[in-house]
Amino acid sequence: MAAPIFTTSRIVEFRDTDAAGIVHFSVFLQYMEQAEHEFLRKRGLSVMGSDEHGTLAWPRVAVNCDYRGSARFEDTVEIELSVDRLGDKSIRYRFVFRVAGVEIATGTMTTVCCREDGQGGYQSTAIPEWFRNKLNASPRP
Amino acid sequence: MAAPIFTTSRIVEFRDTDAAGIVHFSVFLQYMEQAEHEFLRKRGLSVMGSDEHGTLAWPRVAVNCDYRGSARFEDTVEIELSVDRLGDKSIRYRFVFRVAGVEIATGTMTTVCCREDGQGGYQSTAIPEWFRNKLNASPRP
Amino acid sequence: MAAPIFTTSRIVEFRDTDAAGIVHFSVFLQYMEQAEHEFLRKRGLSVMGSDEHGTLAWPRVAVNCDYRGSARFEDTVEIELSVDRLGDKSIRYRFVFRVAGVEIATGTMTTVCCREDGQGGYQSTAIPEWFRNKLNASPRP
Amino acid sequence: MAAPIFTTSRIVEFRDTDAAGIVHFSVFLQYMEQAEHEFLRKRGLSVMGSDEHGTLAWPRVAVNCDYRGSARFEDTVEIELSVDRLGDKSIRYRFVFRVAGVEIATGTMTTVCCREDGQGGYQSTAIPEWFRNKLNASPRP
Repeated sequence: MAAPIFTTSRIVEFRDTDAAGIVHFSVFLQYMEQAEHEFLRKRGLSVMGSDEHGTLAWPRVAVNCDYRGSARFEDTVEIELSVDRLGDKSIRYRFVFRVAGVEIATGTMTTVCCREDGQGGYQSTAIPEWFRNKLNASPRP
Repeated sequence: MAAPIFTTSRIVEFRDTDAAGIVHFSVFLQYMEQAEHEFLRKRGLSVMGSDEHGTLAWPRVAVNCDYRGSARFEDTVEIELSVDRLGDKSIRYRFVFRVAGVEIATGTMTTVCCREDGQGGYQSTAIPEWFRNKLNASPRP
Repeated sequence: MAAPIFTTSRIVEFRDTDAAGIVHFSVFLQYMEQAEHEFLRKRGLSVMGSDEHGTLAWPRVAVNCDYRGSARFEDTVEIELSVDRLGDKSIRYRFVFRVAGVEIATGTMTTVCCREDGQGGYQSTAIPEWFRNKLNASPRP
Repeated sequence: MAAPIFTTSRIVEFRDTDAAGIVHFSVFLQYMEQAEHEFLRKRGLSVMGSDEHGTLAWPRVAVNCDYRGSARFEDTVEIELSVDRLGDKSIRYRFVFRVAGVEIATGTMTTVCCREDGQGGYQSTAIPEWFRNKLNASPRP
């Protein structure tokens, strides 16, 4: 299986910036997550979902980001997402951020499939087959 | 009853600022809420609470803010909270924001006491007597 | 002149929500601003701009919002912006927020045209003719 | 030189949480930065500063965070900062986050000393001696 690649973009909002005039470094993690959720939606999936066995959740267990450049208000940030590693219970996404074709940041985010245990807690679990199938399927038009 | 007045302060964090170099106007609403929660905590109260009748919640129904000045990174913002109107089911807080003694913003926030209806929804309800008593009591040292 | 009306929408991002499971009340101000900036961009305008007389800025002087409902993760929020009052130096925008056609919030935001005074400060000024003309023109396709 | 260690804490604000009921993973980066700035302030330093050679800035070049647990509204998060690596031009901070003594996250943040080049850009530069001296000095009471 070739890793699904997904590309999206967003215009830098004023609230994304800080007094240095650039997108705050923490906002790149929000961009990662927004791209992940859009990627999943295109496949009919959501991080807030459930099946006959109960409610699923996808807590993040690791994130890293390297910054080489910056983005400013009203720049268009192109975000490339790829499934870097699809494990039994976890997904590691890889992200490349570009402005006007120039790479400004790269990073990864690892998220673990969990089931609600009925007591307000979550236990890691194997990614259900139906989720895995949709993840690997072609996106909706 | 004299309106309880509460004063707190916070140092402007870098993430509170935007590319204009000042605290983003939406962040004043976060400061309002943070002052409200600190005010309540000092009285042994929380917006996430419950009693023998179930879970309470305090959705916001109205907010307004007038901006006369600005605050910058590492400024100390003094926040004055007063209970502007204590209704049967709602509380209207009034806020004054100052930097170095100069008023930079004023506003109000109205929040309604609600009970969870067991179906994921909330219904407005009279503020419970125990909550009202603590609200009017002297703060904890 | 009929007030320009502009409609946009956005999908609620996970970071827009809070532990009550709904969009945080302060985020509606970010949605207001995002709609304003998109409205301006469609007319070739930006809140960060300049002309031969120097740099312009648009600090916010007043905002209010009434909340009647809520929006949840991945809801599509429809945002209607209208120029409620176009003054000599200021613009008051009015906003209506809807989810699935149901009004969940309304509000206004007033912003004042300012020029940088060369000393890090800003002075209010009449909205330049070129800005006013573009504001009233039809949006770009 | 022993690495300076600094400990601070903060109460989880409602805006820090998301619809999963816990502190959003991107907020840990804000906590990192807030601890860094508090650590610097205690030593008479700021990330927004200048000397006779001009304005200094500290863009972030790398960040990572591993999450093992979570924090909820009104939890007290203890944040331990240490100077993990003090280079010629850069500082790598290491962070440990705890709630009630239990480690919930660890991470690092690397920031590079830069000087404004007078054209709106920044060039990396050796950390000035005066900055380095204060960094290694004992904190102010």
